[in-house]
Amino acid sequence: MTNADSVRIRVFSLNCWGIRFLSKLCTERYAMIGDMLCKEEHDIVLLQEVWSEKDYLFLKKKLSLSHPHSHYFKSGVIGSGLAMFSKHRIRDTFLYRFSLNGYPYMAHHGDWFGGKAVGMAVLSIGSLTANVYVTHLHAEYCREKDSYLPHRVVQAWELQQFVRHTSAGADVVILGGDLNMHPQDLGNRLLRSYTGLRDAYLETDTFNGCEDGVTLIADNPFINKKELGPFEKGIRIDYILFKGSSKVDVFCDSMSTTKGSVPDHPFPYSDHEALMAELRLVSHTPVETGREKCIKEKDSAAGRVAELVDIVTEARTEVKVGLHCTESMRYTAARTGVMGLALLLLELAIAAVPWLALGAEQPFPLTSFYLLAALCFAILLTTFMLYILYTMELKSLQGAEDQMRLAVGSLQENLRGFPLAQPHVSLRKPPEGVSVLDQEE
Amino acid sequence: MTNADSVRIRVFSLNCWGIRFLSKLCTERYAMIGDMLCKEEHDIVLLQEVWSEKDYLFLKKKLSLSHPHSHYFKSGVIGSGLAMFSKHRIRDTFLYRFSLNGYPYMAHHGDWFGGKAVGMAVLSIGSLTANVYVTHLHAEYCREKDSYLPHRVVQAWELQQFVRHTSAGADVVILGGDLNMHPQDLGNRLLRSYTGLRDAYLETDTFNGCEDGVTLIADNPFINKKELGPFEKGIRIDYILFKGSSKVDVFCDSMSTTKGSVPDHPFPYSDHEALMAELRLVSHTPVETGREKCIKEKDSAAGRVAELVDIVTEARTEVKVGLHCTESMRYTAARTGVMGLALLLLELAIAAVPWLALGAEQPFPLTSFYLLAALCFAILLTTFMLYILYTMELKSLQGAEDQMRLAVGSLQENLRGFPLAQPHVSLRKPPEGVSVLDQEE
Repeated sequence: MTNADSVRIRVFSLNCWGIRFLSKLCTERYAMIGDMLCKEEHDIVLLQEVWSEKDYLFLKKKLSLSHPHSHYFKSGVIGSGLAMFSKHRIRDTFLYRFSLNGYPYMAHHGDWFGGKAVGMAVLSIGSLTANVYVTHLHAEYCREKDSYLPHRVVQAWELQQFVRHTSAGADVVILGGDLNMHPQDLGNRLLRSYTGLRDAYLETDTFNGCEDGVTLIADNPFINKKELGPFEKGIRIDYILFKGSSKVDVFCDSMSTTKGSVPDHPFPYSDHEALMAELRLVSHTPVETGREKCIKEKDSAAGRVAELVDIVTEARTEVKVGLHCTESMRYTAARTGVMGLALLLLELAIAAVPWLALGAEQPFPLTSFYLLAALCFAILLTTFMLYILYTMELKSLQGAEDQMRLAVGSLQENLRGFPLAQPHVSLRKPPEGVSVLDQEE
Repeated sequence: MTNADSVRIRVFSLNCWGIRFLSKLCTERYAMIGDMLCKEEHDIVLLQEVWSEKDYLFLKKKLSLSHPHSHYFKSGVIGSGLAMFSKHRIRDTFLYRFSLNGYPYMAHHGDWFGGKAVGMAVLSIGSLTANVYVTHLHAEYCREKDSYLPHRVVQAWELQQFVRHTSAGADVVILGGDLNMHPQDLGNRLLRSYTGLRDAYLETDTFNGCEDGVTLIADNPFINKKELGPFEKGIRIDYILFKGSSKVDVFCDSMSTTKGSVPDHPFPYSDHEALMAELRLVSHTPVETGREKCIKEKDSAAGRVAELVDIVTEARTEVKVGLHCTESMRYTAARTGVMGLALLLLELAIAAVPWLALGAEQPFPLTSFYLLAALCFAILLTTFMLYILYTMELKSLQGAEDQMRLAVGSLQENLRGFPLAQPHVSLRKPPEGVSVLDQEE
């Protein structure tokens, strides 16, 4: 597959929907996935929602010949669900766990227990170094009233930071996974603009798959049509992204997705469609180092920087909305806790009366007394734990907001070199609701 | 301070011991620290244990002229305690929170609530890019029976991963902070060997400070001598580490520490001694890129790789010991939970007898019944939460262990190019207790 100075690699990504005993036909689907991967021999396989390590080990055994290198990323209570198989040697791995990922009490959504993260592997593809990332962001359960939006924006922020800061030494960068975001969603724009990663679906020469590249489709028998809401045609939330470096140019020659069914099988691999992209890596003599090129690219594109300022500002607004929300939830938890404490003290005071005035009749039936006391304790304990939880969420949101403020400042500093681009930024209206400047340094 | 092609920068690091209302003379000490920093005008100030944001803001205000750039790293319930002040522009920041950091029920140790992490800032020093890291690892409360050792080893592992993967694009790398490890401790060797970071104390031409560079000393009035145990002279646990790149050589011209007191003041800045290192950055024309030099350095030093294999193997053993410990703690939690459940069911069964055989006397006094039921519930809830906690710990330990196994394999692969070095590795005895090979791929 290697030309004089070009290498072709095939990248595969699939959300496997692998919740044992809950996902339909889980075992059968893993067997199908294993057969297909074994036969197709993609260079890099990026899997999400492989929640059970047993299923990973099953695949690992099955793919031991076709994909001798693999890694399963562990995190959280259940695991990150992220797995990677490769024909090329995995030199190194690293995991970054997102600081925000839903709430433990939203157990029916389950995201918190999954320990969502981004996994990185450093691969040797011939003489090239490829940084390959696999990730899965927090699900969107209700697009109209998406209480997890700040969490997903912070995840996208951390994802772009992680990719940007860890990929300086790489010749090729590939990211695949279920981003749980529509193509033009804030987090997606943030990720692509900041890292310079390009969307294989938008870059490909030939595409074979569902219309508009959607990966959640109504034709998939595992999908409840209601989930798609107004997007009857489907939603594109799974991606393969890539970028080259000063040493290597990357092109996407072709891309394909499954279309809700698999030939000769009664059901598809998963409730998501699978993605496959064929990338061509073309080496050339570096004329400047990666960072210099990076800086040059940044500096030469004032418009891009100005756009980035807008996107980061929008993200910052979203995070601030989340901050206000979390603050009020923490306040509610604290208030409820104080009420529980007051109730407990009141009860104790009433109970103390006959004890102090010896002989007076016990005003409480004993059963009610214990039940009420237990209720008060339960309230106190719950609100205390919620308070801790919301405090941690606040810290993460504040941290992200601080970093975003710094980033905007840094980007605007860059823009000073572009007098023409400046007005675009300074004339920009502040986002509605929250002023961007109120916490400015 | 700039020669033709060399730059001098002064780096300061201090664990501020800033627990409001608990640390002695906290406000007074912050005022002293602020005055000194304002006067000394170090280029980069790395502070740990700035637990209260108010104290950070106090310092920020005080240092607004001398150090116009600053960042406070937020994480966990209380915060990471990490703060950075700089005379040079901070272009970007990023925070990595360690996956393991003690236990929430060890509230008196408090580490879990602090959200220990490593903070990174990308600084522009003239035309150079410096990646500056500040960190604080889990404390060592008892060296003889250190139940947190696996946590600290995993933290050191993640720290070296973070530094290594994020610093490929940097011209200079500086790390400062309270590592809570003696100079030859496993985690310290892991960090230095893997990243190539050099210890300013060992590299400096002139040193002015406590004997052996210790930073926890008996002469400090805030120190309880018992804490030092057999190390009466003191312990060196605070460090400034650095390395250059293909473009820049870094030298440590001088280093100093405080010596348990501050002239003209009745007490020192903190219970730790402060560190100051003067680094000289000498630029030269790059003859090869950072990664190439890195690879070359690695490849040219077979001995170093072999040593690294030993260190990672030792770390892996330590993590495995932690794994066994955590597994047995999780087992105990599960068993206690099952016993609580059995007790509850037994109680309900006994209480159900008179209910089924109508008219029979209630065998339980009502008070005991409710108290016992409450106890059972408390046991069930506690053990359930402990089970979740230990499961998360297990995932993190397993994840680190997997990565270490991969790293050893990768390093050994490198070693195949050095036939002379190979015997050193293959003849190495497996560590006692746990076989390294039992989970080999």
